[in-house]
Amino acid sequence: MLLGQVIGTVWATRKDPQLVGMKFLLVREVDLDGSPLATTVVAVDAVGAGEGETVLVAQGSSGRQTELTDKKPVDAVIMAIVDRLDVVEVDPPVLQETA
Amino acid sequence: MLLGQVIGTVWATRKDPQLVGMKFLLVREVDLDGSPLATTVVAVDAVGAGEGETVLVAQGSSGRQTELTDKKPVDAVIMAIVDRLDVVEVDPPVLQETA
Amino acid sequence: MLLGQVIGTVWATRKDPQLVGMKFLLVREVDLDGSPLATTVVAVDAVGAGEGETVLVAQGSSGRQTELTDKKPVDAVIMAIVDRLDVVEVDPPVLQETA
Amino acid sequence: MLLGQVIGTVWATRKDPQLVGMKFLLVREVDLDGSPLATTVVAVDAVGAGEGETVLVAQGSSGRQTELTDKKPVDAVIMAIVDRLDVVEVDPPVLQETA
Amino acid sequence: MLLGQVIGTVWATRKDPQLVGMKFLLVREVDLDGSPLATTVVAVDAVGAGEGETVLVAQGSSGRQTELTDKKPVDAVIMAIVDRLDVVEVDPPVLQETA
Repeated sequence: MLLGQVIGTVWATRKDPQLVGMKFLLVREVDLDGSPLATTVVAVDAVGAGEGETVLVAQGSSGRQTELTDKKPVDAVIMAIVDRLDVVEVDPPVLQETA
Repeated sequence: MLLGQVIGTVWATRKDPQLVGMKFLLVREVDLDGSPLATTVVAVDAVGAGEGETVLVAQGSSGRQTELTDKKPVDAVIMAIVDRLDVVEVDPPVLQETA
Repeated sequence: MLLGQVIGTVWATRKDPQLVGMKFLLVREVDLDGSPLATTVVAVDAVGAGEGETVLVAQGSSGRQTELTDKKPVDAVIMAIVDRLDVVEVDPPVLQETA
Repeated sequence: MLLGQVIGTVWATRKDPQLVGMKFLLVREVDLDGSPLATTVVAVDAVGAGEGETVLVAQGSSGRQTELTDKKPVDAVIMAIVDRLDVVEVDPPVLQETA
Repeated sequence: MLLGQVIGTVWATRKDPQLVGMKFLLVREVDLDGSPLATTVVAVDAVGAGEGETVLVAQGSSGRQTELTDKKPVDAVIMAIVDRLDVVEVDPPVLQETA
């Protein structure tokens, strides 16, 4: 899933009739320290996310696996609101046996 | 979904027979201030979008979830025409507890 | 869909038995003025595209929505041969209301 | 699949009800020598991966092909914990017949 | 599909039980002249590819369309072993009518 921050709303009255009633939110990807990254996606809100909140976005066909977006032309859904991250210092793994 | 602007039309007479009657539009991705970005996709129009209009494009299998594109070899569909964006200033979130 | 030009053929005798008889073409993405871009994909030809022709490629599961590629391990199909593009000059859209 | 290292956990109490009980782990992509790469994804853990471990992540609809994530709004799942890599020196292949 | 060269093997004993018996190979993308590119993916081998061989990889849900990977948490499968490429010199197409 993509880690991002809600930074706005997209308004669209003319749309596929299946989409009526859905909230389209602007989600800007953020790094683990919260700083903004380059990617911004438009996602349907399925959990009541508010502006400024940090969220998880499921994309592709997984974006249609909620009651709200099932079988809809939607490729990104907000499916969780993030409380916090626990990030740990790790050593790079040793993946190959040295000869 | 991808936020983009319709900048043209693709004409193709020789095509999979399932695609006859579909309009293939050129959609250039735009930033939140409307400025053009690098990506341009070809998408089937499902909502009557016109040249110059700002639209939302659903990609992948979600591009097939409209009556027009159901079960068709289409991986991008225009499913909404954008009226406007509300973008808010947000502070970067504090995601990690400082020790 | 991806806009590209056919620049060659991939020959592969040892393959999944479901793929026997399919033509694997090399498709290099092109810009709207026809100039080559960085991406080259291998796609199954479903419409009789020839070398040098400009085509549309549907990717992902949409690459399996033709009679030829249905249920096959194929993630890219050529589903149209392009006649021409009509590209129009557009002004960047005004997406946000200024306060 | 993506080769990555588990570097943390995402906590989210407000989420789609189908996701209750799932562990969301932060997986940073690594190179073949274990050095960190730019991409970090959030993936559901389906095999009991721990922090610092090297894992394989299946993305897209394949992220839903485990008992835990079936039909859920999840686009990335940890489906294997890596023991080691065997990487061999190979000569670049000669793919084209010189005239 | 992605054109790549097999450069190694991933060993993983702890994994989703559905994956037992599958070979996970490291496939580095190559250019049309065989030179290595930046992307390396982990793919399940469905055609008996050996180290150093040039292969085609189908990704996403198409990675599950072989008998071996059907319904499995696998998003990339080796489905062909390349014999050779025929690449032709082509002129950039003229896509737009000049006024």
